[in-house]
Amino acid sequence: MNYKMIAYSIGRILLVVGMTMLIPLGLAIFYREDTIWAHIVPILICFAAGAAALVWKPKNRSFHAREGMVLVGISWIVISLIGALPFYLSRQIPSFVDCFFETVSGFTTTGSTILSNVEALSKSMLFWRSFTHWLGGLGVLAFTMAIFSSKDSKTSYMMKAEMPGPVLGKLTSSWTFSLRILYIIYIILTLLEVVFLLFGGMNLYDSVLHACSTAGTGGFSNWNSSIAHYDSAYIDYVISIFMLLFGINFNIYFLIIARKFAQIKANEELRWYLIIIAVSSLIITINLLPMYKSFAEALRYAFFQVNSIITTTGFGTADIASWPMLSQIIIVVLMIIGACAGSTGGGLKVIRTIVLAKTARYSVRKAVSPRSVFSIKADGKEIGVEIRHGVLAYFAAYAIFIAVAILIVSLDNKDFSTTVTSVISTANNIGPIVGPVGHFADFSVLSKIVFSIAMLVGRLEIYPILVLFSPYMWTRK
Amino acid sequence: MNYKMIAYSIGRILLVVGMTMLIPLGLAIFYREDTIWAHIVPILICFAAGAAALVWKPKNRSFHAREGMVLVGISWIVISLIGALPFYLSRQIPSFVDCFFETVSGFTTTGSTILSNVEALSKSMLFWRSFTHWLGGLGVLAFTMAIFSSKDSKTSYMMKAEMPGPVLGKLTSSWTFSLRILYIIYIILTLLEVVFLLFGGMNLYDSVLHACSTAGTGGFSNWNSSIAHYDSAYIDYVISIFMLLFGINFNIYFLIIARKFAQIKANEELRWYLIIIAVSSLIITINLLPMYKSFAEALRYAFFQVNSIITTTGFGTADIASWPMLSQIIIVVLMIIGACAGSTGGGLKVIRTIVLAKTARYSVRKAVSPRSVFSIKADGKEIGVEIRHGVLAYFAAYAIFIAVAILIVSLDNKDFSTTVTSVISTANNIGPIVGPVGHFADFSVLSKIVFSIAMLVGRLEIYPILVLFSPYMWTRK
Repeated sequence: MNYKMIAYSIGRILLVVGMTMLIPLGLAIFYREDTIWAHIVPILICFAAGAAALVWKPKNRSFHAREGMVLVGISWIVISLIGALPFYLSRQIPSFVDCFFETVSGFTTTGSTILSNVEALSKSMLFWRSFTHWLGGLGVLAFTMAIFSSKDSKTSYMMKAEMPGPVLGKLTSSWTFSLRILYIIYIILTLLEVVFLLFGGMNLYDSVLHACSTAGTGGFSNWNSSIAHYDSAYIDYVISIFMLLFGINFNIYFLIIARKFAQIKANEELRWYLIIIAVSSLIITINLLPMYKSFAEALRYAFFQVNSIITTTGFGTADIASWPMLSQIIIVVLMIIGACAGSTGGGLKVIRTIVLAKTARYSVRKAVSPRSVFSIKADGKEIGVEIRHGVLAYFAAYAIFIAVAILIVSLDNKDFSTTVTSVISTANNIGPIVGPVGHFADFSVLSKIVFSIAMLVGRLEIYPILVLFSPYMWTRK
Repeated sequence: MNYKMIAYSIGRILLVVGMTMLIPLGLAIFYREDTIWAHIVPILICFAAGAAALVWKPKNRSFHAREGMVLVGISWIVISLIGALPFYLSRQIPSFVDCFFETVSGFTTTGSTILSNVEALSKSMLFWRSFTHWLGGLGVLAFTMAIFSSKDSKTSYMMKAEMPGPVLGKLTSSWTFSLRILYIIYIILTLLEVVFLLFGGMNLYDSVLHACSTAGTGGFSNWNSSIAHYDSAYIDYVISIFMLLFGINFNIYFLIIARKFAQIKANEELRWYLIIIAVSSLIITINLLPMYKSFAEALRYAFFQVNSIITTTGFGTADIASWPMLSQIIIVVLMIIGACAGSTGGGLKVIRTIVLAKTARYSVRKAVSPRSVFSIKADGKEIGVEIRHGVLAYFAAYAIFIAVAILIVSLDNKDFSTTVTSVISTANNIGPIVGPVGHFADFSVLSKIVFSIAMLVGRLEIYPILVLFSPYMWTRK
């Protein structure tokens, strides 16, 4: 293992993270907060690490899949430790474990919180909290690579380890160039949302904060009642639609720019993603009719929560726990499915769900005629047994991890539903346990650490974190 | 499809089922019940069908995997419809859907009940109810084939479709002969349990009834409070140990008879099954210590419930819902794992869990070194990618079926925990939802039908039932 190369890369990542922390520092100065030093100290640590990396370049620049995995796993832990410092140094969140939880929840775009009263935090802190969603959405390493160009093979390994979803299309012949295009699309969409929110009468600070949280499909708000605070159908619909847009594979936007509409039409994941959203919204709307005054009002809340959950954002406008059980179960199924691969959303991903469903159908056919040969296709391409096996093995590793996490959290002796859904919610990067007001303040330190690991495992799609615990990883030459 | 051969086989199966129904008829006469006609009518139907089959033998005797699947699926539905008649005709269970549910629960060895007061049923009915567990344990078709010998290839197809678990060792060169040995072992173990229970002071009727329910790992009792009724540590331990024994792959008993102890020692599934039982019992015992007077008392209840759940029997001696959450979560994990393949127990099966865990570990290693070649072994034999894919595809089909079933049951608008665990409990053939007194009386007719299908899907390992719903099955020439 090329440890020097890993240390060097972490230095560069911290340099970029330090640069992004200048924004909340600026806000702290602008709003005359007493939190200035709480921002400056971590920035200085980042810059020192970055400077060390720039001075001390490793000679052996070899970098393979293994280094990519380890770098992604370790650097996400390191940036979460550094990113937690402003909360801790300002004493706005007294316990460091809580600060770490909150920052992991931010970077992984989970949106779960240990705060029972969000509104007690200062403006610069709330902004940094939501900005970690934006940074974590497409990946902190990806952001670093989009800024510093680096060797194409290294970029490809890290993108494979950090980007959500099993399918990552290479948009152009260069990975670094592709990444920059992705970031331009990401920034444009975020700014578009800011503009639309401003039109709805939201102030600039709130608009930028919520656009960052939507872009990362994170779900942190600066209000305890989340988006319900504004009580505006316009704002609900704007955020609903942007959640939907950020849950789409970003390759689709590239195809739009490149005017390759035939390829978009043929995209099975996008088709099913939209079908699932439409059908779920409609069923839930009908199911909710007795609870609301009109079809339009029921649709507004159903459509918002469906997009909030399938994209694993976790913004709230309604108390899901009071909905009929059919709607609640649909919401849980959407939680598990998640958004499209190559988006900022979490969960299993629509494409993996398609492969699972097709494999299940295949296995029924195979039971009918064991000796026949069947092929499974997605987007017109054949999915071989090796790829299917990979998807299913991922599912197995995921299920086992969740079972172990639930066992540890059960030591807290909460009720059954809380124990199970808190782990699923964090491991799928969704956010609140249930309803818009759920928080994680009352769990033990051990459970909070388990949740933090679960959020990292969910966001980084298991392997970059699990390999850190694998004896094979460290004993292999 | 050779429909005539399927109809002929169903006739022979019904003949055997009719013969077994002579036992509760005898009990009804012995106890002078007014339920005699309720037993005689279904027996006459069975004998008529059997006579028709004996007279009208099909000329084309071709029989393949597809016929095996369809025969197993249809005949389990048919015998459940016939087996429900005594309950219905005697008016001891007024609704036919409830009678069907109860009989499916019996044959599939689930042990879930729609009865809120079991003790209201007559002795002959309670015996028939528990005897369906014994019949369903190793398979009703298997029982038929053990009585009438038939073509070896047909026997092999049906055994593959009906026996629980992916691994079915062929004990001797003839399938029919192997099956007879299995049944001899099954009968001897059942009689042994009767003897041990009689020693504990249980009367003959109760001993035979509970031995039948244990043998099939079903869980029907003739008492509302299940095994807690006897309040005897001796009886608890006898039943615990027989549940454990009936959860072991029956090939192991054959290996004991054949004195092949090296093969037993090398059996990974047996080793893990015993390790899981020992470790779970110990952890739960420690976890329960504050609730009971002594370590011995806590161990007694923990060991009983662990065996009751992992073998998916579902007998109760303690109210699990009042246990600490750690113990409850361990119980749920055991529910999902289930017993050994080739036993009468349900669930995912220990061997599949081993393959899932090894595949997950493999996928972590593959993430570290994508180009390395790893092999996965169980019982010293290599498990190729095709077999692993089969196990994982089964898991996927199973997960999707459960999700759909939960969605339909959620229409009943019960609470979250009831909705989810009722489906998992029936689909894994475990029994009561939670605690020893749970029953299914309050669900809607639609949900009861879904539960009945779930029990059949769980017992027959998905495919024989799912192929009946597959358009591919019926359109293919």
